[in-house]
Amino acid sequence: MNNIEFAQRFASPLGSPIRELFKYVNLPGMISFAGGYPSPSLLDSTGLMEAGLRALSDGSNALQYGATEGSAALRESLAALCSTRGVHCSADDILVTTGSQQAFDLLVRVFVEPGDMVYVEAPAYPATLQALKQAGARIKECPVDQDGLDIDQLTSFLEHVEAADRPKFLYTVPTFSNPSGTLLPQARRAALVGLAQQHGFLVVEDDPYGELSFDAPIATLFERGKLLAHQANPVIYLSSLSKTVAPGLRIGWMVAPKDVSRRCAVAKQTMDLCTSPLNQLIAVEYLKGDRYQATLTTSRAEYARRMRAMVDSLTSRLGNALSFVEPRGGMFIWAVSALALDPQKLFHAAVANNVLYVPGAAFYAIPPSSTAMRLSYAAPTVGEIEDGVERLASALLFATPQPSTCRSLTDV
Amino acid sequence: MNNIEFAQRFASPLGSPIRELFKYVNLPGMISFAGGYPSPSLLDSTGLMEAGLRALSDGSNALQYGATEGSAALRESLAALCSTRGVHCSADDILVTTGSQQAFDLLVRVFVEPGDMVYVEAPAYPATLQALKQAGARIKECPVDQDGLDIDQLTSFLEHVEAADRPKFLYTVPTFSNPSGTLLPQARRAALVGLAQQHGFLVVEDDPYGELSFDAPIATLFERGKLLAHQANPVIYLSSLSKTVAPGLRIGWMVAPKDVSRRCAVAKQTMDLCTSPLNQLIAVEYLKGDRYQATLTTSRAEYARRMRAMVDSLTSRLGNALSFVEPRGGMFIWAVSALALDPQKLFHAAVANNVLYVPGAAFYAIPPSSTAMRLSYAAPTVGEIEDGVERLASALLFATPQPSTCRSLTDV
Repeated sequence: MNNIEFAQRFASPLGSPIRELFKYVNLPGMISFAGGYPSPSLLDSTGLMEAGLRALSDGSNALQYGATEGSAALRESLAALCSTRGVHCSADDILVTTGSQQAFDLLVRVFVEPGDMVYVEAPAYPATLQALKQAGARIKECPVDQDGLDIDQLTSFLEHVEAADRPKFLYTVPTFSNPSGTLLPQARRAALVGLAQQHGFLVVEDDPYGELSFDAPIATLFERGKLLAHQANPVIYLSSLSKTVAPGLRIGWMVAPKDVSRRCAVAKQTMDLCTSPLNQLIAVEYLKGDRYQATLTTSRAEYARRMRAMVDSLTSRLGNALSFVEPRGGMFIWAVSALALDPQKLFHAAVANNVLYVPGAAFYAIPPSSTAMRLSYAAPTVGEIEDGVERLASALLFATPQPSTCRSLTDV
Repeated sequence: MNNIEFAQRFASPLGSPIRELFKYVNLPGMISFAGGYPSPSLLDSTGLMEAGLRALSDGSNALQYGATEGSAALRESLAALCSTRGVHCSADDILVTTGSQQAFDLLVRVFVEPGDMVYVEAPAYPATLQALKQAGARIKECPVDQDGLDIDQLTSFLEHVEAADRPKFLYTVPTFSNPSGTLLPQARRAALVGLAQQHGFLVVEDDPYGELSFDAPIATLFERGKLLAHQANPVIYLSSLSKTVAPGLRIGWMVAPKDVSRRCAVAKQTMDLCTSPLNQLIAVEYLKGDRYQATLTTSRAEYARRMRAMVDSLTSRLGNALSFVEPRGGMFIWAVSALALDPQKLFHAAVANNVLYVPGAAFYAIPPSSTAMRLSYAAPTVGEIEDGVERLASALLFATPQPSTCRSLTDV
């Protein structure tokens, strides 16, 4: 079975393939590298409990409906948080969303008509692909290499594009991408923003992981876009508290030009009227103190330690069988097999060995022929990471075709 | 200015007109009959604080991502709650949504292609109209009389409908409708479900107010639909905790056939991945005890008292100038002027007198020529209701054309 057939079996056209993995995650003894969520041990339950108490004691604001754009207090807090990342904006520029997933969905609803062209980095976050497919978009996959979006290839696409195939926008996670873990270098950031300006398309910069950096942070695309002379910023910035505070709050946000966020707010009204005012108030209370920065400092150190454990284990156990780039932040290692493996056989061998990952095919509209996997080091402990990689090594060995038997099996 | 012009000025084609009212609600001294939210004094802050504490102390379930369909515990609780209303279903039949607004939006996303026909009761909840307009639906407005949907007119529509104009579904709030406050009688319920069966369309029964009944409850459309012999239930049931617990939780749900809720869950993934697991857990904890029923009992009595105050004030102050049906539950009185008034003049006179309502035009795709208003007695106190009606009476007097001056003004 090749990768495309596998992807077709694995994922219904409109369903997320990651959804299919849920049935395996809680099997007894399973070590999961599949999750894209924070380590349970890093969630600041105490701080959130305190924030929750303060929020719930303000019944009038927490329990009623709120403004569709988000509460003034949270928009102020998020603008302040953005400024620490170099994303300078005012509270008025912020639209609070029910997770950053909703922010992307709103942009799709506002911008994308059936048949419209949208560019995405490839591999890309599956729910992005799913939202675009549901909207009937045509998806152009722009390859990612070890440094993120391949700007030369993108330039070439854009130079040869017909008018009808111009992208409405390009979607990318430039900082510690999901799934590739890559960090787009400064020069490529400048080039990407320049291409957007030159060819007149928007860039949707999804940045849930930027603060989980293991070393010095790098300027956002949004910041670069603001520097463009005589031109509106072509970058729309999305972020989330899901990776740095708690996914359970479902708090994300969008920084966009007024006309875009106004149209998105109108669309949001029909989606959920407003993001939970209770959760917004919890976020405000949490962001008030110093716990956010303290948790971030702890998280960065712990994720760096786990990343190191996974990189070392993969290198020592698997040598050259898997190639990958060592991440400089975020939650993911994108590992590509050097061998031509049956992706389904590998996946089932891994599950049989009690280790779970997300098959690479899940991250493409049209999967390439190589076999890849997304490995997250965020949730498992160092010990689990070492054991899990051990199990993965056995699965790879099992799935590696031995020339003679492989041929005879194929002939049957 | 006639009603249609007023509606056009008042509402952008894709924006909710009610949104425009926000700017007036918090003006000093304003008495608002415009809100469709629970009385702040009836929110059980203490009970919700206790539930919140219990939920937050379960960090692992409250703070991470959750299943798109909703947590098993909440689906069990909501199935049990449904059964007290005669909506017998299992936890598996329930999709938890981020408010019932999202449930409707999911149905639109799953069922409605641009150009598709959808029937709605008229007047109807504005965010329903807005969601349908955004999806490019054609909207057929089915008139409501003092007993809710006019089944004779609906029957006549359906008998003469071309194949291309058959509705994908019909949307109604049969129990204490928003905005008309009407209660659809048993015979009409039976007839509506029969029409759905006969003509092969779905009925979306939106039921946020059913439990706020001032006397004996009435069987839901869902329950009637289940009785149909040899036929799948044509009724999809939506409800919400926003009117009975707290809007700030953003917890709604849908009871639908498996294939519908599965498709809605897939669509929900791209919208917000999951409804806040924290808020789901708060709802579970709240519904566990007897506080839900106790709050409901208090709310029913208090809303009945406020309804009585509004009905009595309207009758004594306005006599025959406004006609309305006395509600038997819910939050709304739909008052229609017996005179041909300029709706904008009336609205501005009311605002100038420090009383706010939602102009009737907001509840139609194509407003009729009569001047109506939605008056909510849920949030204001009895004293505010009496004062507010007094102010409304002055506004009506001011806006009532005096034949001679009116003519001369029109001629200018």
